Amino acid sequence: MTRFREGRREDVAAVIALLADDDFGAGRETAPLDAYLAAFDAMRTEGTNHLIVGEQDGRIVATYQMTFITGLSHRATRRAQVESVRVAADLRGQGIGRAMMADAEARARAAGCRLMQLTTQKGRNRAQEFYDRLGFTPSHIGYKRELSP
Amino acid sequence: MTRFREGRREDVAAVIALLADDDFGAGRETAPLDAYLAAFDAMRTEGTNHLIVGEQDGRIVATYQMTFITGLSHRATRRAQVESVRVAADLRGQGIGRAMMADAEARARAAGCRLMQLTTQKGRNRAQEFYDRLGFTPSHIGYKRELSP
Repeated sequence: MTRFREGRREDVAAVIALLADDDFGAGRETAPLDAYLAAFDAMRTEGTNHLIVGEQDGRIVATYQMTFITGLSHRATRRAQVESVRVAADLRGQGIGRAMMADAEARARAAGCRLMQLTTQKGRNRAQEFYDRLGFTPSHIGYKRELSP
Repeated sequence: MTRFREGRREDVAAVIALLADDDFGAGRETAPLDAYLAAFDAMRTEGTNHLIVGEQDGRIVATYQMTFITGLSHRATRRAQVESVRVAADLRGQGIGRAMMADAEARARAAGCRLMQLTTQKGRNRAQEFYDRLGFTPSHIGYKRELSP
């Protein structure tokens, strides 16, 4: 049984380990812990930005981030943007991801959102099958552009 | 010359007209003005959520929304999420869109973002060519799911 709750400062190292333990994320999460803690502290000042963790017997086994975005379009729909979804590699295929997205949906509804949205990197085929099964529609192309310093 | 600035409450009706004047948005923006004004007021309480308008001689000719999202992933990168980009139909092809995205980039950098991201609906071919030209990479699939009441 996984319990989902708001992440705390002492969870940050475990969350970074989850983000790094991934074919796409490997080698990417190399910042010093202090940089992640500073980002966590900044997230806490953004009232619409939430780091959620899934906990099993004291172990952080899953994580996602969700941001509530009020906007004018689509008849003034508030939307929930999901980022950085991850389940511990040794626990995949057990329904934790599905439970996590149900938790995200419940939080989004409670915040008045009528739309959930997320992007997955092309090539993440298992993730795409996962979101297809959950009733998400791959209706958009996701563009990114890095802003070099 | 288009001047970009934060949208004001009295701009909301003009912004909705821009959002509605679109092959994909047509027929979609049918909420009463009060609903849009309430969303605008809510946006103003979200310190990281900005409605920007482009103004020419007192006319609102373009709009976009940008949300700054702090997060842990990608070495604690802060990102700027762009939504609801629109240029008045009679003024397209004159560089307003390019100027608007330059404005977005400047605001994103000033907010400490190192990544800009947005999605476009599949089939918006002109939009896709536009973002390709601006150096955006179509690396992701954008999933949406409506949350019915």
